[in-house]
Amino acid sequence: MPAYATNMRLKFPILALTLELLTIVLFAVFVVYDDGKPSSDPHDPHDPHAGNHTQEGAPMDLYPMFQDVHVMIFIGFGFLMTFLKRYGFSSVGVNLLLAAFGLQWGLLMQGFWHMEDGKIKINIFKIINADFSTATVLISFGAVLGKTSPVQLLIMTILEITIFSINEHLVATVLHANDVGASMIIHAFGAYFGLAVARVLYRPGLKNGHEKEGSVYHSDMFAMIGTVFLWMFWPSFNSAIADPGFTQLTAVINTYLSLAACVLSAYAVSSLVEHKGKLDMVHIQNATLAGGVAVGTCADMNIGPFGAMLIGLVAGIISTLGFKFLTPILASSLGIQDTCGVHNLHGMPGILGGVAGIVAVAMGKKDGGNASMQAAALASSLGFALVGGLVTGFIMKIPLWGQPPDQNCYDDSLYWEVPDEEEESGESFAHADHSKNKAEV
Amino acid sequence: MPAYATNMRLKFPILALTLELLTIVLFAVFVVYDDGKPSSDPHDPHDPHAGNHTQEGAPMDLYPMFQDVHVMIFIGFGFLMTFLKRYGFSSVGVNLLLAAFGLQWGLLMQGFWHMEDGKIKINIFKIINADFSTATVLISFGAVLGKTSPVQLLIMTILEITIFSINEHLVATVLHANDVGASMIIHAFGAYFGLAVARVLYRPGLKNGHEKEGSVYHSDMFAMIGTVFLWMFWPSFNSAIADPGFTQLTAVINTYLSLAACVLSAYAVSSLVEHKGKLDMVHIQNATLAGGVAVGTCADMNIGPFGAMLIGLVAGIISTLGFKFLTPILASSLGIQDTCGVHNLHGMPGILGGVAGIVAVAMGKKDGGNASMQAAALASSLGFALVGGLVTGFIMKIPLWGQPPDQNCYDDSLYWEVPDEEEESGESFAHADHSKNKAEV
Amino acid sequence: MPAYATNMRLKFPILALTLELLTIVLFAVFVVYDDGKPSSDPHDPHDPHAGNHTQEGAPMDLYPMFQDVHVMIFIGFGFLMTFLKRYGFSSVGVNLLLAAFGLQWGLLMQGFWHMEDGKIKINIFKIINADFSTATVLISFGAVLGKTSPVQLLIMTILEITIFSINEHLVATVLHANDVGASMIIHAFGAYFGLAVARVLYRPGLKNGHEKEGSVYHSDMFAMIGTVFLWMFWPSFNSAIADPGFTQLTAVINTYLSLAACVLSAYAVSSLVEHKGKLDMVHIQNATLAGGVAVGTCADMNIGPFGAMLIGLVAGIISTLGFKFLTPILASSLGIQDTCGVHNLHGMPGILGGVAGIVAVAMGKKDGGNASMQAAALASSLGFALVGGLVTGFIMKIPLWGQPPDQNCYDDSLYWEVPDEEEESGESFAHADHSKNKAEV
Repeated sequence: MPAYATNMRLKFPILALTLELLTIVLFAVFVVYDDGKPSSDPHDPHDPHAGNHTQEGAPMDLYPMFQDVHVMIFIGFGFLMTFLKRYGFSSVGVNLLLAAFGLQWGLLMQGFWHMEDGKIKINIFKIINADFSTATVLISFGAVLGKTSPVQLLIMTILEITIFSINEHLVATVLHANDVGASMIIHAFGAYFGLAVARVLYRPGLKNGHEKEGSVYHSDMFAMIGTVFLWMFWPSFNSAIADPGFTQLTAVINTYLSLAACVLSAYAVSSLVEHKGKLDMVHIQNATLAGGVAVGTCADMNIGPFGAMLIGLVAGIISTLGFKFLTPILASSLGIQDTCGVHNLHGMPGILGGVAGIVAVAMGKKDGGNASMQAAALASSLGFALVGGLVTGFIMKIPLWGQPPDQNCYDDSLYWEVPDEEEESGESFAHADHSKNKAEV
Repeated sequence: MPAYATNMRLKFPILALTLELLTIVLFAVFVVYDDGKPSSDPHDPHDPHAGNHTQEGAPMDLYPMFQDVHVMIFIGFGFLMTFLKRYGFSSVGVNLLLAAFGLQWGLLMQGFWHMEDGKIKINIFKIINADFSTATVLISFGAVLGKTSPVQLLIMTILEITIFSINEHLVATVLHANDVGASMIIHAFGAYFGLAVARVLYRPGLKNGHEKEGSVYHSDMFAMIGTVFLWMFWPSFNSAIADPGFTQLTAVINTYLSLAACVLSAYAVSSLVEHKGKLDMVHIQNATLAGGVAVGTCADMNIGPFGAMLIGLVAGIISTLGFKFLTPILASSLGIQDTCGVHNLHGMPGILGGVAGIVAVAMGKKDGGNASMQAAALASSLGFALVGGLVTGFIMKIPLWGQPPDQNCYDDSLYWEVPDEEEESGESFAHADHSKNKAEV
Repeated sequence: MPAYATNMRLKFPILALTLELLTIVLFAVFVVYDDGKPSSDPHDPHDPHAGNHTQEGAPMDLYPMFQDVHVMIFIGFGFLMTFLKRYGFSSVGVNLLLAAFGLQWGLLMQGFWHMEDGKIKINIFKIINADFSTATVLISFGAVLGKTSPVQLLIMTILEITIFSINEHLVATVLHANDVGASMIIHAFGAYFGLAVARVLYRPGLKNGHEKEGSVYHSDMFAMIGTVFLWMFWPSFNSAIADPGFTQLTAVINTYLSLAACVLSAYAVSSLVEHKGKLDMVHIQNATLAGGVAVGTCADMNIGPFGAMLIGLVAGIISTLGFKFLTPILASSLGIQDTCGVHNLHGMPGILGGVAGIVAVAMGKKDGGNASMQAAALASSLGFALVGGLVTGFIMKIPLWGQPPDQNCYDDSLYWEVPDEEEESGESFAHADHSKNKAEV
């Protein structure tokens, strides 16, 4: 690929502005505020949430939950990916870009399934779901982090949220499956979608690693900001759209306890498998969160506090083992280079969550649940993810979108103005001037 | 100016303690808890908020909103300014100092306009407004960041909040203008106040830049913490004091969407105007927030979701263009050295917000609104800001307050004990000891 | 102590997994969701909170308060301790480990005093208290930071939370003392417990300092993240379990004002006692929070806004003076090496808070309060802390738990895989590769 192809000067601004203008036109035609008044149509009888938080409860009741989820999307996912030594600008910056566009696109794609009088009515419940829809993209972003251009990623955002919205509708409205914390429809979906994209974009040139694919001390600290905010607010993620009252309380408690148990098992296994019993930051940053993923589907079910803790315990173990043993095999044998190890944080724990949901429903832990429908929901989510991810990957591979060459992977300086001082070794902190980095591809 | 003048040992402690003791005395005389009981006086009929959240609703209803605003003031503004390579202690530390004093002063200054039975009654609504009053100071702080002493800044805090409170009273109670998200009375006011101060404190010696006036890789990452927290919680800023219910929901949705659209336009224009289409951290850290500023005045108006997005789109464009083209001209031609570019983030978007408010009210988007009064509010805010800023600037210029000499600008070591290791180039991270930096002015 | 003793490979995983499995078994036997239904037993007439937030109010009413406290525990305490140049992984990582285990243990230990029908019923109120119980451990952790192994700290967690729960029960249910913000039962208790442990673990070899016991510029910035989040959310800490309504509002306002006043006095005194009037980051990071500690006991009392501010003012002064003058004396004369200075942030301000509570109750500022019981609560808290801490210290001193040798104190690389680049001086940022540090003890 010729070097100039990575110059974003025209293609990125044109794509971004065109998408935004198109989105604004669609909003002008279709989107209104939810004023709380019933529509002239009867509510879609298949929509479990129709009118849920608009006609009952005050319009702002869910707002604190929304803000917790918002922090997870923008600080949590954004900073979790800043562990790479020279890719922090892209991690937190492109995370912001994709999520900001994705939430608008998600409002439209999810909204089209639930129109009233031909309009999408926005309320807090809808913007929580819009934030959720971006989470799929941010998970997939983790699989291809450092190896894709902003243009490629905007394309992935459009396609992934569109496909996500179809699967979500199928799972919730057609299958009537339970997935309150979205182990299946967000975490497993986002992970396998991203892994499929990563497979298509496989780079043999990175088989032996890359000098920039690693952390430095301070970048690992920044990543912990993301980890801890995700960890703290995960109870909000899993309970935000639960039925109000004691069901929501159950979702909070299950998630709180699953995450706490998961920390212990992740630390224990990290120490067990590492050199001289040391802890590995990669495990701590990620596997401590697997309990939140895995308890998602049955967060609002009556699985008992100890049931939630068992799920978290197992999730922490398989996630850490995945980082240690599976990720290298995926890269070497299957051609899947998973930068952030989303398979270990979202993929396997997401499937664990889906399976736990099947078992819990089969054991009668959720009124009205149907284990077959749960299984169908898991299969649907994986199927849409893999097929959707492969198709999306091939579209992203078209050599027009400024994909970085191997030697410039994991390096902000390809798409960002980067301050000089850390670019040229030997130059001290104190004497660096503030002129912009002129090194180019 | 003689070097010893920057020694804060006596003047800073004496000023800080004197101010705090004076404030405590004023609190002892005038301030009580709001116990929710009606006062013996009828409420001020001109105060749109009188008793708003005290007699209706529970006393803690607004508390989550308050905490979001609190995070914006202390983390948001504080970390946004940490982008400078050697001025992080001052950015986040002096931000804390000014806001902690400012909120006390703001409670008094705003409270004096709304006394009941001779007392200022504190509730959550009042402490939100107190936090708001400090925002004006923190915006102005951005204009003079790195070039002022803590003593000068405490003086600015007193004067600016006092003047702000007069203008706010005029706008809200006399003119009955709408400015729910404070585009005019906080953002435009704070920006032009700070720019007027910066004009008076103009330093020809910094005309050709300063070696410390720039970022390093990690300082840009710290600044992104500020950016993202401001971005996430801006819907709370713009809706915190909106009328409860659907009006508040409208303010949330408009702000959420304006910010999302603004991200796309800020990224697009940054790439368009930068070298080889790269993104510039200065734009991303700041211009992505302009949509929150610009939608402030009409956040609670019925402008439609797409209307909010259009405002955000335009704000992101003018803000980015301002950083690229206008800031250098202000410095070279008008003698206004605006360290953080507050003119681009708060100044122009604040005026845009005021103008959008005039238009929206003229179009009937706000019941009871009056376009002339909106215009008068904008003019009043700019007038108080410019005159107040000039007067304040001249007071700050009195050579008693320890203003730093040019060569020590943008450098924490003038007012802070700074660890050694990054002070002396060539000394490695690993071998730095923990003795304090002895280098003095 | 032989070097291999610090190898955690077996003892840490076995301890962590055993504890977690034991905890899960206890949860399976004793813990259920709170379903809001009254138990068959009458509520414990001595428990002031029995059923408080379960039968009155909606089950999620306290959730935003809980999340604020949660952020203080995991971000606040975690990042506050990241100031050391090479101990950030341990600070934030071990903080997460201890708090995640501690909250489970705390639910059991606190729950055993308040069982209904033989079960511990979890609700938001209970998980707030569980988070609180971990705060004692995290405070004590600060006293021994850098000088203890994860195994030692897990042992401390079990013992300290157990002892805390006994004292808490005594203070609240037997003595009926007031301590809404826990100046006595958390802050003073945690500090003196930790100091007693530190006394037992005294290291003469560190009498003259340690090259790694100090900050670097960026580590001080990370610590400020902890400081500011603690500072902002402290009103939630002090009011979370206050009686709903105006009492809770009073606790918020008193804490908000005490912290604001404390900032001014901490800054003033820091400048007054430091070289050439400079500010010291250690003071700013810690003493600015002393106002939150000191106002804790009387946060919900009618002490008046100015009363709260006076408490904050005094707390900021004694805390800063403590860092400057007392900490060195404790280390040199009493053999108490207090890494984070918890005596200054939690110890003395905690006692100040207890004393202020005695005085306020004696002055009739709290209905039903009894000054003698307040004094007894303070004495009990200090007594349990000192005796409990000494016993715990001796158990931690048993040479089986992998305590680090002096030369490896304050150094993450003993228990963590640490990226290479900052380990070997002279190696530049840009050229560091991502292989793991092989240096071992």
